Amino acid sequence: MKLYGYWRSTTSFRVRIALNLKGVSYETIPVDLVAGEQRAPDYVALNPGKGVPTLILEDGRVLTQSLAIIDYLDATIPEPPFLPEDPFERARVQAAAHTIAMDIHPVNNLRVTAHLKSRYGLAAEDGIEWFRHWMTEGFHAYQALLPANTTFSFGDKPDLADICLVAQLYNAHRWGVDMAPFDRLLEIEERAFTLPAFDAARPENQPDAS
Amino acid sequence: MKLYGYWRSTTSFRVRIALNLKGVSYETIPVDLVAGEQRAPDYVALNPGKGVPTLILEDGRVLTQSLAIIDYLDATIPEPPFLPEDPFERARVQAAAHTIAMDIHPVNNLRVTAHLKSRYGLAAEDGIEWFRHWMTEGFHAYQALLPANTTFSFGDKPDLADICLVAQLYNAHRWGVDMAPFDRLLEIEERAFTLPAFDAARPENQPDAS
Repeated sequence: MKLYGYWRSTTSFRVRIALNLKGVSYETIPVDLVAGEQRAPDYVALNPGKGVPTLILEDGRVLTQSLAIIDYLDATIPEPPFLPEDPFERARVQAAAHTIAMDIHPVNNLRVTAHLKSRYGLAAEDGIEWFRHWMTEGFHAYQALLPANTTFSFGDKPDLADICLVAQLYNAHRWGVDMAPFDRLLEIEERAFTLPAFDAARPENQPDAS
Repeated sequence: MKLYGYWRSTTSFRVRIALNLKGVSYETIPVDLVAGEQRAPDYVALNPGKGVPTLILEDGRVLTQSLAIIDYLDATIPEPPFLPEDPFERARVQAAAHTIAMDIHPVNNLRVTAHLKSRYGLAAEDGIEWFRHWMTEGFHAYQALLPANTTFSFGDKPDLADICLVAQLYNAHRWGVDMAPFDRLLEIEERAFTLPAFDAARPENQPDAS
């Protein structure tokens, strides 16, 4: 498979973790979001949302949207599963994952902050405050959704929620979110990075890292 | 079941459509987002994300996040299915659904525009322009993801993508998005509202509509 992504994109980071956990080898094709490569016509033909990631399957078929890609991987490569089998437990894990994937990430997306700056004149420091605000709100909600006494978010193995969490925490560190209220999330992150699948997916380990 | 929601919330609208399509009768418990009821401690105990919807199952268990709730309904009540069985087709429908649920809706969420106004001084008309901008971008992407010659988004029956689309179109009309480029989306909407499940879920048909 081929993964179009960007080293610092947290949605690309999610899919890298998922591919690694499933044991899929893939080729990285960097899309430089800062240079605007996601708006090049050839790329938009693959990904009309002008975002990353985009996954090209072995037969050339194209998938977009990180959580849809991860669902495909989970449906076609059963082990290890990313969601519990029980419908209620499955929905609980997804609710936590979506607290990050819907309530934090889209609002902090590069295209949103770029638009805030170019159209409404927000200063760079306002952009950083913006990032911190939504992450702090979202991490409180995420932490409140977790059951007690688990080593990862919902059990003793990483799942879809952990994939979203660990990727988002990269941004939290990058933008200096005060993590004092979120000890439990940092413990999950530390545990995740002892696994090669998470470690190899780190932004700084990608070929386009600079 | 009991559904905590708000008549104009598009995520509540999604879950109402899903409940109706699955033939689930439910009680509506209004949460007045404009009055800030989503931040009341009793409600936050149910929904730490301080959002709607929240679904209370018959046995009292609680689910949050609209797409996680819809996944639960689809897993426990198989007919009619909201996603195709084939993993690739399933991921394609989800990608379109997420184009709305991740790329449009979170950025246009009431809490985001309220924060833009209170913290950064955006004027009311800037807020409307903000809504229109993200919907226009997202609808172009959504429309480009659709296969040719379907009556609903991906086939001849409504699925998860249609649920997200129809709910979002309510906001598009409300905020005056120029729909000229989106004839196909309007045709899907018109077809959907011929179905009682969609029609009964309309914001104006809810007990808290004003």
